[in-house]
Amino acid sequence: MSVKTVQFFGNKVVLLDQRQLPFKEVYLEYSGVNELARAIDDMVVRGAPAIGVTAACALALGAAGLNSKDYSDFAARFEKLGALLAGTRPTAVNLFWAIKRMTRIVEQAEGKDPESIKSLLKQEAIRILEEDIEINRGIGRAGQAFITDGATILTHCNAGALACAGYGTALGVIRAAGELGKTIQIMATETRPRMQGARLTCWEMVKEGFPVTLICDTMVGYVMKTGRVDLVLVGADRIAANGDLANKIGTYQLALLAQAHGVPFYVAAPLSTIDMETNCGEDIPIEHRAEEEVTHIGGQRMAAEGVGVLNPAFDVTPHKYISAIFTERGAVKPPIDQGLNRLFPRP
Amino acid sequence: MSVKTVQFFGNKVVLLDQRQLPFKEVYLEYSGVNELARAIDDMVVRGAPAIGVTAACALALGAAGLNSKDYSDFAARFEKLGALLAGTRPTAVNLFWAIKRMTRIVEQAEGKDPESIKSLLKQEAIRILEEDIEINRGIGRAGQAFITDGATILTHCNAGALACAGYGTALGVIRAAGELGKTIQIMATETRPRMQGARLTCWEMVKEGFPVTLICDTMVGYVMKTGRVDLVLVGADRIAANGDLANKIGTYQLALLAQAHGVPFYVAAPLSTIDMETNCGEDIPIEHRAEEEVTHIGGQRMAAEGVGVLNPAFDVTPHKYISAIFTERGAVKPPIDQGLNRLFPRP
Repeated sequence: MSVKTVQFFGNKVVLLDQRQLPFKEVYLEYSGVNELARAIDDMVVRGAPAIGVTAACALALGAAGLNSKDYSDFAARFEKLGALLAGTRPTAVNLFWAIKRMTRIVEQAEGKDPESIKSLLKQEAIRILEEDIEINRGIGRAGQAFITDGATILTHCNAGALACAGYGTALGVIRAAGELGKTIQIMATETRPRMQGARLTCWEMVKEGFPVTLICDTMVGYVMKTGRVDLVLVGADRIAANGDLANKIGTYQLALLAQAHGVPFYVAAPLSTIDMETNCGEDIPIEHRAEEEVTHIGGQRMAAEGVGVLNPAFDVTPHKYISAIFTERGAVKPPIDQGLNRLFPRP
Repeated sequence: MSVKTVQFFGNKVVLLDQRQLPFKEVYLEYSGVNELARAIDDMVVRGAPAIGVTAACALALGAAGLNSKDYSDFAARFEKLGALLAGTRPTAVNLFWAIKRMTRIVEQAEGKDPESIKSLLKQEAIRILEEDIEINRGIGRAGQAFITDGATILTHCNAGALACAGYGTALGVIRAAGELGKTIQIMATETRPRMQGARLTCWEMVKEGFPVTLICDTMVGYVMKTGRVDLVLVGADRIAANGDLANKIGTYQLALLAQAHGVPFYVAAPLSTIDMETNCGEDIPIEHRAEEEVTHIGGQRMAAEGVGVLNPAFDVTPHKYISAIFTERGAVKPPIDQGLNRLFPRP
């Protein structure tokens, strides 16, 4: 997959504008934190790991532009940059994870001169970006063992290369299975309101030669009841310590429907999506977005005038519905909370 | 509600073009069976009862144009008109019910001269149209007793005045509750692919002053889990003898989600939707429609090129999920099959 979701060139960040896919492949250049924060907010870039990577690059870029003579001034200003980015999207924890990881670089360099810290931050952002693809390959290795040859996989939203620096989490597992010669069929929900399934997942998977069938979100029960789906595989925006997870709106009902039909429900996510400081799903903040995402499609109003709108961007899937979580450190099987505790031992 | 979904003037049928709602209120005139069959196929008119009423009017219109000198020639040609209409949409049984009812007029007039039968057919079509609204008022009376004051009702697709000659089945129950002074909140799923919830239900309900909240089909689980819905109320396209029902795609998962959350799932439908000759849901033919309904929205392509598509227009909800069916003869409660048998005693 030659598409570059996020690229970092030291003095600029280049994002593939995902709002214009699948029709136009437009790359936008950014040289400041403010505009990158807006790009995250506007969903030029989206997907929990990609948001994390972009935030790390944005911080490196922002730090490079800081005009501080001493450490404490630099650290104070850097903190403000982090706060700016932290205010963009509340649900995906990778954003906060990336800010924290970059902040640690600053803290560990306490007292050093700002110029050397800027250089360390740039290196760290590049490391985060490069690691992301390696991590996804690890997730793919762990997950593909659960994918039988000939399987039809239902996926929701886009947890692909476009949601990461590359390769993808859920779609990375599919790629890994494909690389091993397994024959896979994809069923993609269109994923209203923003149509990431129809626009992004279909685009990625068609590009790589996987057979893809697109369905509306109303058809999930039908395809499960008629035996057309062998397993569900999605990404995650935040996984709480007990295994409850926030992911794209519609994931919860998909998980419930999967369980009712005896279809395994798998989640693919890097360790940076696991938030051991959030105890359970009820503690995950859910972002609500603009009404126009629901009333309009492709810039065109679809709904009658005068209606109210609900537009939660995510929902929470209780851990009891999860058959396994695939991470770069292997698969976490139920009881999920115990598995997560083994990955992140608490003192 | 002043909107006239189907009007019959003896020499022409006028349909409100529902494809253009909620933005344009366009009425189209038809004077022949062929064009009316195409209008049903193209969904100028839709909704099981409205399709039945339109088919009855089309047959009266078509019969009036037959140039037969004797009864047997007339009856043979009339049968062909029925077969033409029967070939339009396979799932909604009201279509076949209306054809059968009109055919009975012809059979009962065996040997009479064609001109007098044409007049009887015209009278019968007018009766079917006028009865439809009365029947819906009866459904409303039966159903409103189950609606508590202050309830938030989730509905799917459009089972309103636009799906009938007027008043509506599911939305008729809401109207009846409203007429009795009950305060009702509507939550409408947008109902992909054809957006009848966003376009038609929202339009009807806003027009009558009900507060309506529009959600995407991905948000059903979320609104139930967060306690925002008191009951689900939908229409039906065909109810089998055991109570299994076909309705707009997405109804099945809605019913399953309702049960999982302890939310009652009610169905509003006239007796003409109940098909005692179909034993169970598996015997109901499910219409599949064009791929463009899924890949495109409002004439605009949304999906990546190269994907396959599934587009079942309906799904089947097993009777075990149904809390009650509201008919013009009262509410049918579980066990649904026994209740239906009491309404339609078999010899």
